[in-house]
Amino acid sequence: MAFIDLQKDLPGIRGPMAFRPETAKPLNELAEVLLHDDNNTLSRGEREMIGAYVSSQNDCFYCQNVHGALAQHYFQCDIPFIDAIKKDYQSAPISDKLKALLAIAGSVQKGGKYVTPEQVEHARTFGATDREIHDTVLIAAAFCMFNRYVDGLNTRAPQDRQLYVDRAKIRAEEGYADLNVYK
Amino acid sequence: MAFIDLQKDLPGIRGPMAFRPETAKPLNELAEVLLHDDNNTLSRGEREMIGAYVSSQNDCFYCQNVHGALAQHYFQCDIPFIDAIKKDYQSAPISDKLKALLAIAGSVQKGGKYVTPEQVEHARTFGATDREIHDTVLIAAAFCMFNRYVDGLNTRAPQDRQLYVDRAKIRAEEGYADLNVYK
Repeated sequence: MAFIDLQKDLPGIRGPMAFRPETAKPLNELAEVLLHDDNNTLSRGEREMIGAYVSSQNDCFYCQNVHGALAQHYFQCDIPFIDAIKKDYQSAPISDKLKALLAIAGSVQKGGKYVTPEQVEHARTFGATDREIHDTVLIAAAFCMFNRYVDGLNTRAPQDRQLYVDRAKIRAEEGYADLNVYK
Repeated sequence: MAFIDLQKDLPGIRGPMAFRPETAKPLNELAEVLLHDDNNTLSRGEREMIGAYVSSQNDCFYCQNVHGALAQHYFQCDIPFIDAIKKDYQSAPISDKLKALLAIAGSVQKGGKYVTPEQVEHARTFGATDREIHDTVLIAAAFCMFNRYVDGLNTRAPQDRQLYVDRAKIRAEEGYADLNVYK
């Protein structure tokens, strides 16, 4: 049970977002720009995958399934493919650039100072731009916030992973900006 | 030197915020609601102190000085008073409620799952409300993002602590919503 009375029985981050719409608004706008906005040279799938990976490193069941299912939707793959990336992205059949960005994201998850100049240079050799590196760091940092928000309030996470897969298509279409989904 | 070309020589988070105004907007709106908005039963000083404490636990020099200086401004105290809270809040001359909220914030800094029902109940015995507990968790989580954003891009932090103190008064007056300060 959540640590505070969230009033409505919404899963994961949707509970505290309905509880405090004043903070839900900028949180969703941030997610929209970082993850859904098409004005980005990283694909939506790559960006959702960075969020899912960081969430798995933070052991946040709700976030890694929501955003893993979105990556799965965009990649048009299955759950085991996403799980393989979360478990060992270096061995997964993804681009060298995404591997290099996931390495940066993994360092951000541990703490900002874990990112090394070598990691950044390595990403550049595979074509990563300043903005892609910026967005990777901020997506990883933002999920360190979202994961702590969800688990720090002990919110409820449905355990059936298929539920997240079923919901991903709608979220992909609607994005994060419409606050009505949190009501 | 920052890992990406931030174009303008702005310190700390102001560099990446000027680099990517699309994400700066929701980040600043979040800070405004959480830290500066007067529609809150936690004082501005208490909220800034929670942010400064989490930033010190994350060893983020820039953020702990910016927000420590703001707490100092609101508390009308000196730098050693803020440093004493960061070092050992249990022994500091602050309210039991703020101590209990700092304990929750300290757990959030480690990871969402570190927050215990006992910590939350303890805060309630000193009068903490659901919304105060919510805001404490989200402020702590948000600083886990801000700190990683600042240090993960290796931004520049002025080392003279008095500079942060001098700037705090203006930030307290203006709040976080005006994006012009990041240009």
